[in-house]
Amino acid sequence: MLDLPHHDGSARYVGTQAPDLGDVVPVIVDVPDSFPVTGVWVRSVLDGEPVFTKARPDQRTAAGTRWLAELRMRNPVTSYRFLLATADGYRWLTAAGLVDHDVPDATDFLLTTYAAPPDWALDAVIYQVYPDRFARSAAAAGRDVPEWAEPADWDEPVTPHGPMSGRQLFGGDLDGIVEHLDHVADLGVNTLYLTPIFPAGSSHRYDASAFDRVDPLLGGDAALERLSAAVHERGWRLMGDLTTNHCGSDHPWFTTAMNDPDSAERAFFYIENDGSYTSWWDVPSMPKFDHSSEELRARLLDGPASVTGRWLRPPYALDGWRVDVANMTGRRAADDHAHEVARTMRGTLAATRPDALLIAEHNHDASADLLGDGWHGAMNYPGFTRPIWSWLRHPDVELPFLGVPTHIPRWGGAAAVATMRAFAARVPWRSYIHSWSLLGSHDTARIRTVVRDPAIQAVAAGMLFTLPGIPMIFAGDEIGLEGEFGEDARRPMPWQRPGSWDRATLERYRDLIRLRRTQPALRRGGLRWVCATADCVACLRESPEQRLLIMASRAPATPPRVPAAPLGLAPRSSAAGSSAGMAAGASAECVYGDGPALRADDDGLVTLPGDGPGVVVWSLP
Amino acid sequence: MLDLPHHDGSARYVGTQAPDLGDVVPVIVDVPDSFPVTGVWVRSVLDGEPVFTKARPDQRTAAGTRWLAELRMRNPVTSYRFLLATADGYRWLTAAGLVDHDVPDATDFLLTTYAAPPDWALDAVIYQVYPDRFARSAAAAGRDVPEWAEPADWDEPVTPHGPMSGRQLFGGDLDGIVEHLDHVADLGVNTLYLTPIFPAGSSHRYDASAFDRVDPLLGGDAALERLSAAVHERGWRLMGDLTTNHCGSDHPWFTTAMNDPDSAERAFFYIENDGSYTSWWDVPSMPKFDHSSEELRARLLDGPASVTGRWLRPPYALDGWRVDVANMTGRRAADDHAHEVARTMRGTLAATRPDALLIAEHNHDASADLLGDGWHGAMNYPGFTRPIWSWLRHPDVELPFLGVPTHIPRWGGAAAVATMRAFAARVPWRSYIHSWSLLGSHDTARIRTVVRDPAIQAVAAGMLFTLPGIPMIFAGDEIGLEGEFGEDARRPMPWQRPGSWDRATLERYRDLIRLRRTQPALRRGGLRWVCATADCVACLRESPEQRLLIMASRAPATPPRVPAAPLGLAPRSSAAGSSAGMAAGASAECVYGDGPALRADDDGLVTLPGDGPGVVVWSLP
Repeated sequence: MLDLPHHDGSARYVGTQAPDLGDVVPVIVDVPDSFPVTGVWVRSVLDGEPVFTKARPDQRTAAGTRWLAELRMRNPVTSYRFLLATADGYRWLTAAGLVDHDVPDATDFLLTTYAAPPDWALDAVIYQVYPDRFARSAAAAGRDVPEWAEPADWDEPVTPHGPMSGRQLFGGDLDGIVEHLDHVADLGVNTLYLTPIFPAGSSHRYDASAFDRVDPLLGGDAALERLSAAVHERGWRLMGDLTTNHCGSDHPWFTTAMNDPDSAERAFFYIENDGSYTSWWDVPSMPKFDHSSEELRARLLDGPASVTGRWLRPPYALDGWRVDVANMTGRRAADDHAHEVARTMRGTLAATRPDALLIAEHNHDASADLLGDGWHGAMNYPGFTRPIWSWLRHPDVELPFLGVPTHIPRWGGAAAVATMRAFAARVPWRSYIHSWSLLGSHDTARIRTVVRDPAIQAVAAGMLFTLPGIPMIFAGDEIGLEGEFGEDARRPMPWQRPGSWDRATLERYRDLIRLRRTQPALRRGGLRWVCATADCVACLRESPEQRLLIMASRAPATPPRVPAAPLGLAPRSSAAGSSAGMAAGASAECVYGDGPALRADDDGLVTLPGDGPGVVVWSLP
Repeated sequence: MLDLPHHDGSARYVGTQAPDLGDVVPVIVDVPDSFPVTGVWVRSVLDGEPVFTKARPDQRTAAGTRWLAELRMRNPVTSYRFLLATADGYRWLTAAGLVDHDVPDATDFLLTTYAAPPDWALDAVIYQVYPDRFARSAAAAGRDVPEWAEPADWDEPVTPHGPMSGRQLFGGDLDGIVEHLDHVADLGVNTLYLTPIFPAGSSHRYDASAFDRVDPLLGGDAALERLSAAVHERGWRLMGDLTTNHCGSDHPWFTTAMNDPDSAERAFFYIENDGSYTSWWDVPSMPKFDHSSEELRARLLDGPASVTGRWLRPPYALDGWRVDVANMTGRRAADDHAHEVARTMRGTLAATRPDALLIAEHNHDASADLLGDGWHGAMNYPGFTRPIWSWLRHPDVELPFLGVPTHIPRWGGAAAVATMRAFAARVPWRSYIHSWSLLGSHDTARIRTVVRDPAIQAVAAGMLFTLPGIPMIFAGDEIGLEGEFGEDARRPMPWQRPGSWDRATLERYRDLIRLRRTQPALRRGGLRWVCATADCVACLRESPEQRLLIMASRAPATPPRVPAAPLGLAPRSSAAGSSAGMAAGASAECVYGDGPALRADDDGLVTLPGDGPGVVVWSLP
């Protein structure tokens, strides 16, 4: 793969990361000498019409030429690809890779002029807390238990099936989180994401009965103030979780709507004359919003005084929202208000907290919703979680994934990489790197259960913290908690049983987070795949200031051999490349994992290590 | 390819071709026995959420099982794909084919509930007439020559370059067309498409100075009445050509706008305070419309009294519009009114002539504009013309293609098929088959010039008339006219030189059109690729009533061997398949071209002929 031309949306290849309408942006394609071209053009679509702009050789590297072309930002979303003329015709370079025939625009690179997502998000490492199950403060014991709940002892197993599911109240609260921030700090995390904290009729709280106050079971508004202060005092960020698709059936908007057909709230929902109504997945406790109602949008989404806005303001000062069921929000039969909802929320952010982050829950292809004027990114289940699971799952573990009726397959590295590339290719680079990478969440199995083996979890975590995307850890993953699916995975954090913690895994997470936070290319670098075999995948992360080579393997394998020159390595015997600053005999030093220094062999290739499982990162010269 | 599961949007695989919102549509996937599955599901996206519905074995065929699932039309556009569970995991079947890893929704099959395109269009064979160059009646001689024009003798060569380009007036007119309808009838064509007929300042007339009358140089409104009557009397259809992206700079809307900043017309265009304005490709004679003007939309697009509507009504009764530069229409910088324009025109058709056809000129990927609520189809340059050219162009002929800066490559059949599949995969089946297939137009080189060899033109024409899409012939192609690019290709029809006609080519076109008009599967059948080698491609066209095998080759080649059972053929010696109605020793009879009857060999394969170039069509048992 290193012998093919490359471009991605990162700063090494795109001169302006946040262009404005009318800007001219330099875009670069790196063409190895092993791929001889007779000319290079960038093809962009301006006002609906393809336009070709000639590129010129801009810079020699150790392995080839960087060609530069100028891209005119004529429209808010500009799609582009490269035409590489060769002796036998031409190839297209699109975000999905090089193709030897004509293809539609669907995988063109995308660059947008919408306001950029907040920069801090690229430095974030997110820790997902499911408030009922993370930690409880002393105050929790004294609280009234609501009717729906069955109080559970912190040490009690979760009851994942049956009528008790979702009704077990372990009693975690926000002050409990405050009390355990040192654990989070020790891990190296700098952003907390809380699943819903509004009053509701279940332990998951996705059925909010109010949006204007924090659940008293969690300590109420004051507890959120305390948590927010504690988090921000550490220089961290705090994200909330908002259901824009529905509320709970006990929410006064809904009860009013049901009781009074003439109420303004009636238009917030899809209620038929016979009293039946549309709800999320036909679950009656979650009536679906009808976003054609302007009054609903005003109350929920639009402006600093809306639900969206008010929690972003002091004293709560949330740093953004994860939006629940964003993929279905505003979509029903012939209605599709999804983009309008996303754009309205973005407008509220801009007016309230311009540095807030807006992330969509989305369980399949989010590309149509990620052009950049709405959600900044999505939870990248299809383009990250699923391919990693498919590559690393234990051969004996058969688990489903978000409604797919077959269990997760066990694929080789090539299929996993092909999947990651295919999904990344459909969205602007900015939306890709601002999406959340995750190995699991409160809605899926736990990664430890998927892979079973701590050594394989270390590989998964290695990819989580070295690939593009904002890494999100579901609290407990770092100590090896297990769980076969959503409810089963929502196990209380076993503070009371320190002996049950997998401290080796905890150490690995800590090391990997430190690695990510100290290596800029892991946070802002591009992504260039180097190899993908059944048991081993490798890639480059390149930023203007550094280049890293990352190798992940799930098992011992034939040592992969890859071209040395594109890695900036030249044989000791060679004089080649010295003009481009490549010192003969230079080596790449290992910065993470148990890897040897890499040197070019005499045949111009580099031999990567064949042991595994493991993750190794090298800094390239 | 025949040993892989198959689905397409045709009636053999989709139970309802024009479903309504709320319908449940049976969809079928044909799974060969050579591809063992443990289960089949259809995955559709409903209200933004993927939903899996289990399929059941519905019917045995000679080669496998047809699995049937029910697809709920929950939304106006429903995307779906098949999940085929196998012993080692699963495969996805999308419109782009079978994949062994997860992929985004971009190539899912698409089914829509918008009003269906007119059915007559599937039976149409279209003849494109460039009015100035087709034929002139006796009346032409007496007409005043406008200032811009340089009268040309019918026998004069076109001047394709320089200031004379576009100013040569050969004087063809509408009565000239009427006089030559027998030629068109003899060919077998049943639909005429005229490039613009409004008064303008060039021979191409894409710079209209009026939309409310036919150019007097063409005979005026009365001549259009006569032509329309003559065409309709034969039971044919007549299509017009409308510029919705711009008008001519002599159009009173534009002159008023320029002269009077307070005029309503000022808002029809993008005119700056300094008098500069936006025009098509910066050509000053074609000022671009600003479709945010409601008044413009009312005059040009909206309703029976608009330009769009009035020419569809008697006595002109056009049967539809080809829309010029549809890809750019309404698109400029941050403005994108393109879908609104298309939907408005569709609404006008519905209110005026519900059976009218609306086709977009589009020179690259039209998929974003072809979901079915606007244009019925597009001119399929990227998904038909270009791959056919790339496969069949003469090795010594180097020609550009619609702005691409390299000349057309010469690719093998696999690349051509991959291109056709890739573009077809992005649009609803209905939009694909209602798009126009063409081998060239007044905007490109002539097919004869591209391929040079009449025998190769016969292959190109064979594909034009046997593949999905409404075939369009640029008048003169059928007699072997030449031309290297747009203006050069606009050569007058040499009625006066019958000796120059390539009568063998004319005969082939006639035979192929007859074939298309007598074989229903060529007009409404699905498309299943059978093989694609460098020199030979083959496919099935399957309708509920017949199955045809089509083979096209550009040169003699190793005879391809393909599985017999999926073709309904079994070896003489075999008893297999008799239960599914496949008679041992049955043969496929040749219905077009010079092909032998096909029989299964004893090894269960069929040997296709290896001679070429040529096109052969067989009727399968």
